[in-house]
Amino acid sequence: MSKVTIATVAARAGVSRQTVSNVLNTPEVVREETRERVREAIAALGYRVSQAARQMRTGRSRLIAVRIEPDRDGINGSVLDRFLHGLTDAAAPAGYRVMLYTATDDTDEIATYENLLSSYELDAFVLTGTHRGDVRTSWLAEHEVPFVTFGRPWGAPDTHSWVDVDNAAGTVAATRHLLGTGHRRIGFLGWPPGDGVGDERRAGWAATLADAGLPGAGLEVAVEDGIENGAAAVAHLLPSVDALVCASDSLALGALRAVRDSGRACAVIGFDNTAVAQAVGLTSVNQPLTEVAARCIDLLAGVLDRSAAPSQLLLQPALVIRQTAP
Amino acid sequence: MSKVTIATVAARAGVSRQTVSNVLNTPEVVREETRERVREAIAALGYRVSQAARQMRTGRSRLIAVRIEPDRDGINGSVLDRFLHGLTDAAAPAGYRVMLYTATDDTDEIATYENLLSSYELDAFVLTGTHRGDVRTSWLAEHEVPFVTFGRPWGAPDTHSWVDVDNAAGTVAATRHLLGTGHRRIGFLGWPPGDGVGDERRAGWAATLADAGLPGAGLEVAVEDGIENGAAAVAHLLPSVDALVCASDSLALGALRAVRDSGRACAVIGFDNTAVAQAVGLTSVNQPLTEVAARCIDLLAGVLDRSAAPSQLLLQPALVIRQTAP
Repeated sequence: MSKVTIATVAARAGVSRQTVSNVLNTPEVVREETRERVREAIAALGYRVSQAARQMRTGRSRLIAVRIEPDRDGINGSVLDRFLHGLTDAAAPAGYRVMLYTATDDTDEIATYENLLSSYELDAFVLTGTHRGDVRTSWLAEHEVPFVTFGRPWGAPDTHSWVDVDNAAGTVAATRHLLGTGHRRIGFLGWPPGDGVGDERRAGWAATLADAGLPGAGLEVAVEDGIENGAAAVAHLLPSVDALVCASDSLALGALRAVRDSGRACAVIGFDNTAVAQAVGLTSVNQPLTEVAARCIDLLAGVLDRSAAPSQLLLQPALVIRQTAP
Repeated sequence: MSKVTIATVAARAGVSRQTVSNVLNTPEVVREETRERVREAIAALGYRVSQAARQMRTGRSRLIAVRIEPDRDGINGSVLDRFLHGLTDAAAPAGYRVMLYTATDDTDEIATYENLLSSYELDAFVLTGTHRGDVRTSWLAEHEVPFVTFGRPWGAPDTHSWVDVDNAAGTVAATRHLLGTGHRRIGFLGWPPGDGVGDERRAGWAATLADAGLPGAGLEVAVEDGIENGAAAVAHLLPSVDALVCASDSLALGALRAVRDSGRACAVIGFDNTAVAQAVGLTSVNQPLTEVAARCIDLLAGVLDRSAAPSQLLLQPALVIRQTAP
C-alpha cells in the first residue's frame, strides 16, 4: 500500500506536521477552522494513524496472546479450540486482537513469554490449562505482565483474575440425572488423582452418590485419557455398574465401545460435549466456553486499567441429554 | 515490567544514546571496544529492542493475520482448526506470529482487513475458504497487501501464491479402494453443484467410475452439508448402492446412520478425517493440513521479499482406512 503520512496530510491541508499531530493527539489546542481543514485532508487522503506510532505514544498494543494446544486426539483438544473461537469473537468488540503461540510445557511456555515480550508489545496473556504447581502464573506476576487465566489457581494464592467452570457441578448434574432415571449402580471412569480438574469431576460424582446413600467404593477406575484406555479400563467394571459418569468424552467413547462389546446395557455420560458427542449421541456435560471467553476479556479490562481488584468467576456447566443416557 | 531503555543502557556504558542506537543498527560505525562495552551493558540490563521501535525502522511487524471460522457443527470446522494449529507451529520458527480475526462473509472480511490494516502493522494475510467470485483476493491485490491462500483461485487469474489439496485425487483414491474391495455400485453423497471443492470431489468419483466402465448415473445425491441432511438424502439411494463416497465426514455420518437404520450393508467413506471419523471408525480422506500450513508460510517468505514469482502447490491427500470401508 502506498503510505499516506502525516507529511502528506500536512501538505494538503497547508499546515505544519506538528499541527496535524496536534489535531490527532491534542485537538483542543488547534483552532476549529484549522482542525476542520486537517480532518478533511485526513478523510480525503484516507490517512490512518499507524498502530506502531500510536503504540509508541500510548504503550498499548491492543494485542493479547493465548496458547494454542498441539493437535492431540482431536476430541479433547477441541475444547480449547472452542475457547479460542470465543476469545477471538469477544476480543474484537473490546478493541483487542488475539495472537497465538505454542509451547510444549510450562518451562517452554515461560521461554516463549520472554521471546514474545521482547519481540512484540503485548498487553496481556490469557492462560489456559492451569494446574497445581503452575510456575507460569508466578512468573507473569513477578514480571508484572498483565494476565487472566481460564482455570483457577489450584492451591496457589488467589491473587489474580480468573474464570473457571465448576467441574464438580457438572458431574453432580450427570450423576443426579442417572439417579433420576432409575440407575443405582453408578460408576466413575476418571483420570489418575492429582489433576485438579479430574479430582473435581470425581468429587461431584462421589458426593452425589454419598448424598443418595449409595456406595461408590469399587465402582471407579482411573486411567490416562483416551478412547483405548477407557475401553480397556471399563471392561472389568461393567458387571458391577448400570451407568457410568466419565471425566471426558474420550473416556466415554471408550466406555461406549466396551459396553457394546459386552452386550450389556449401561448408560454412559461424557464430559465436554465435543463434536464427537454430538455425532454419536453421547449425553455429555457442556462447558459454557463462549461465556468463559467473554468473561476473560471482561476481566482483562480491569487488569489492564488496574481499575479493579482481582476477580474470580466460577461458571456453571449444563448437561446435554442424548441417547446414551436419555 | 520496569522498562530498560536506550538511555539506561547509555548511562551504564558511559556513552551517548546515539552510540547505543548505532551499536544496535549500524554496529560497523562503532569502535570495537565501545561496541563491547555497550553490548555488556545490554546483556547486564537485559535490554530488549522494542518491537514497536524496530517496526518503525523496518516496516515489518512479523505479524500475519488469519481468519478463524465461527464454531459450526464442530466437525467440518475442525479442519480449519487443524490448519490453524499447523500455521501457528510453522510461523514461529520462521519468525512470524499469527493474529486471529473473524468475519461473517466476504464483505465483512474486507471491512475487517481495512480495520486491521489501520490498527496494526500486519505483514500479510493467510486466506482460507477461497471460492468462485472471491472478492477478497482482488481487494488485497488492489491494495498491494501481501497474502497467500489455502485454496486455489477457482476461475480467477492465477496471479497469487497458493497451496491447495487435490480434492479430486482424494475421491479417486476412495473410489478405487471401494472398487478394489469388490464394490461395483458406488454412489456419491455430495453438495449442490457450484462449489469448487465439492465439484472436484464429485469429479474424482465420476472419473474413476467412468474409467472402470461402471455407471454413476442415478447413484448420486446432493444436499447441504450436515449429518441430518446426509441421513435423509441417502435413504432413497440405499437400495441401489453397495458403497458410498461422501464429500464430508458430516455427510458420511448421516449416511452411516441411514445405513444402520436400513439394516442393509453399505461401505461408507468420508472426507477430512476429522476426530469424529477417528472416534466412530469411519474410513476417510485425510488432507495434509500441517503440510499445507507449512507451505503457506514458505510461500509467504517469497511474497514478502518480492523475491519469487507467485507459486502454486497442489498437495496430495491420503485415504485413512477404518471399519466402515475396510
